Amino acid sequence: MKQSKLFGKTLRESPKDEQSVNARLLVQAGYAEKLMAGVYSFLPLGLRVLNKIEQIIREEINAIGGQELLLPALHPREPWEQTGRWETVDDLYKLTDSSGRDFALGATHEEVITPLVKRDIFSYRDLPLALYQFQTKFRMELRAKSGLLRGREFLMKDLYSFHASEKDFQSYYEKAKEAYKKIFSRLGIGDKTVLTFASGGSFSKYSHEFQTLTTAGEDTIYLCENCRVAVNAEIVSEQKVCPECDRAKDELKIAKAIEVGNIFPLKTRFSDSFRLTYKDEAGQDQPVIMGCYGIGLGRVMGAIVEVHHDDEGICWPKSVAPYQVHLVRLGDEPEIVKQADTLYEKINKLGSEVLYDDREISSGVKLKDADLIGLPLRVIVSAKTVAAGKFEYKQRAADKTALSSDIKVLLKLL
Amino acid sequence: MKQSKLFGKTLRESPKDEQSVNARLLVQAGYAEKLMAGVYSFLPLGLRVLNKIEQIIREEINAIGGQELLLPALHPREPWEQTGRWETVDDLYKLTDSSGRDFALGATHEEVITPLVKRDIFSYRDLPLALYQFQTKFRMELRAKSGLLRGREFLMKDLYSFHASEKDFQSYYEKAKEAYKKIFSRLGIGDKTVLTFASGGSFSKYSHEFQTLTTAGEDTIYLCENCRVAVNAEIVSEQKVCPECDRAKDELKIAKAIEVGNIFPLKTRFSDSFRLTYKDEAGQDQPVIMGCYGIGLGRVMGAIVEVHHDDEGICWPKSVAPYQVHLVRLGDEPEIVKQADTLYEKINKLGSEVLYDDREISSGVKLKDADLIGLPLRVIVSAKTVAAGKFEYKQRAADKTALSSDIKVLLKLL
Repeated sequence: MKQSKLFGKTLRESPKDEQSVNARLLVQAGYAEKLMAGVYSFLPLGLRVLNKIEQIIREEINAIGGQELLLPALHPREPWEQTGRWETVDDLYKLTDSSGRDFALGATHEEVITPLVKRDIFSYRDLPLALYQFQTKFRMELRAKSGLLRGREFLMKDLYSFHASEKDFQSYYEKAKEAYKKIFSRLGIGDKTVLTFASGGSFSKYSHEFQTLTTAGEDTIYLCENCRVAVNAEIVSEQKVCPECDRAKDELKIAKAIEVGNIFPLKTRFSDSFRLTYKDEAGQDQPVIMGCYGIGLGRVMGAIVEVHHDDEGICWPKSVAPYQVHLVRLGDEPEIVKQADTLYEKINKLGSEVLYDDREISSGVKLKDADLIGLPLRVIVSAKTVAAGKFEYKQRAADKTALSSDIKVLLKLL
Repeated sequence: MKQSKLFGKTLRESPKDEQSVNARLLVQAGYAEKLMAGVYSFLPLGLRVLNKIEQIIREEINAIGGQELLLPALHPREPWEQTGRWETVDDLYKLTDSSGRDFALGATHEEVITPLVKRDIFSYRDLPLALYQFQTKFRMELRAKSGLLRGREFLMKDLYSFHASEKDFQSYYEKAKEAYKKIFSRLGIGDKTVLTFASGGSFSKYSHEFQTLTTAGEDTIYLCENCRVAVNAEIVSEQKVCPECDRAKDELKIAKAIEVGNIFPLKTRFSDSFRLTYKDEAGQDQPVIMGCYGIGLGRVMGAIVEVHHDDEGICWPKSVAPYQVHLVRLGDEPEIVKQADTLYEKINKLGSEVLYDDREISSGVKLKDADLIGLPLRVIVSAKTVAAGKFEYKQRAADKTALSSDIKVLLKLL
């Protein structure tokens, strides 16, 4: 992609109306733009990052047997009445059409997927079943202020699993835990993300959150550095020690963190509301055991930026960078243009994703922008490199640059 | 994919609450499920079709320089006030949060994209620009009754183009027309889809619709069989002859059709509202000329089904079929299972998408389901074919079956 054509120019200054580092950097670098608090447009670079996050999640959820579908965002009132959540979910957006009919905007999808699966679940042979989607959720946040970390509208992967027994559910729940660990590891935040015990609501002892440690986090967790698990502060009063070892509250480390994912045993909470049952081997009706498993994609994107940035800009992990290589041409002399164009073609041909800064602006701005945008590998063609018959390259987080004339050197770094 | 595991069972009977052929077939065959009138869930098979439609559109829009982004669905009231459409767009869903703030659900995105592009458009050098998205739209339909053809919530590709001159806009508009023709051709409805002159609203003489001829259509068009263009009945009173030849109204053929896409000159309607201007070569501020270009993905899916079905079920064009091959195993004897399993592996290895009906149910139901689901190529392994050391194959729309032992025969048909 030629940067001169790319929609999403970098801004000279950091936006003043953003309090969070993630939004400041993502907006300034041209990844996102705020429509209003908690609601962002994703510009071409930002959408590429989102798509890569989505694809990593998709692969790992497919690997544990998830089947992808797509549920609506506009829900009739009735199923929300049926679960009793029409009145109790505080952040549900509600609307009424001109004929007086009430709707909710999906904040979560148990009210849609539970009745839906009744079409396919009849006997124990139809279980287990795992269904997921990437879909836009809406939650009424009155004071959204954390950039992409807490949205009124946000993309979410939500997976729902259905089981004939508590034992089968538990076995799947553990698989989901492992899948989540793989996902966050592939997203480049694995070593900052800890499994955290959280409230199980009124029907389970615990749920589990995946919390990414960063000072930008809105959640407070008590981290057991021994077990690499944590407990959400919300339940620490009842849960005074690490669930996996003997340590007491005052032996745990208090940390700020972002909830990037959660997994939740639903037991029969929603199966009961919709009478979702199956016939067991003896022909008796039994309620289906359910679990749900969420990951917020925008929030993950924000968390990655909170973890991976420096004073100059973003430092994307390779797995989610919108392009792998930032080819920066310094100077407009014909020979420089020619060599940079040729290198652009070559890198493209190798199948690597390359953003080519072919803009006719000052070298200083180009270098600043490259740091701000934060692609993993910067390659420079300038008067100096042309004279040497080489190009210069540098990894985003590295200090040192190097020269080479062999494009294969780049391949090794990708 | 093994059909025994697939979520989205076929229904024994056609759903009684669906009036339209597309919804009846898509719901019965397990592609979609109605949540309420005009709002559908896409089950795994349906999502695969949607994704293929999306990818074809993406490729053709990228080919005319479109850059993909993703805009929000939840809009603040203010930009809709600024264009004067808060009160005038009848089918706009509006809602108010608990703090009294008003929002609209995006029925279209001029109100979001026009202010957004001001971040990047300053001079004539920043033009032209073409941006698009695949995104969920919401429109307040009080009586949705045409299945996927008219939704309260639906996926749409919307492209917006920005130009420095009317001439540059016209040239892009013609390119978009050609791209749309390619898209509908690749989607398998090219020969049923005609360019149709429609109202240009208050600011252009015409807009253009792409109308797919089918008796299920909600629109009435006057078709000139000479020019293969049509005129929407809505403007026929003023537009008495074919715009491309001399024929009068009574020489045109009246037909029912589905509007699968439209392209619309916006002139400076929205640029004026948001003061979207650029500096021309003389340094003077000029308003940006805009165009918009839509395709409804669910509606296209419904239109394809209306055009491509018979009494037994859907007959998907190869380009959008969820799987290319339906491998149907008739019988559960070990040798049949073994040979079918082997063939499944082989077809998978060839990189072809195959749905494998490994269910332990009657042959009659399996064959009926294969016709209903409508994949392009049906391959049967049965006692008869095993005895012959072959498999049987048949294209969905063909009458005759054939036998072969050479898997390459299948490849030629894909």
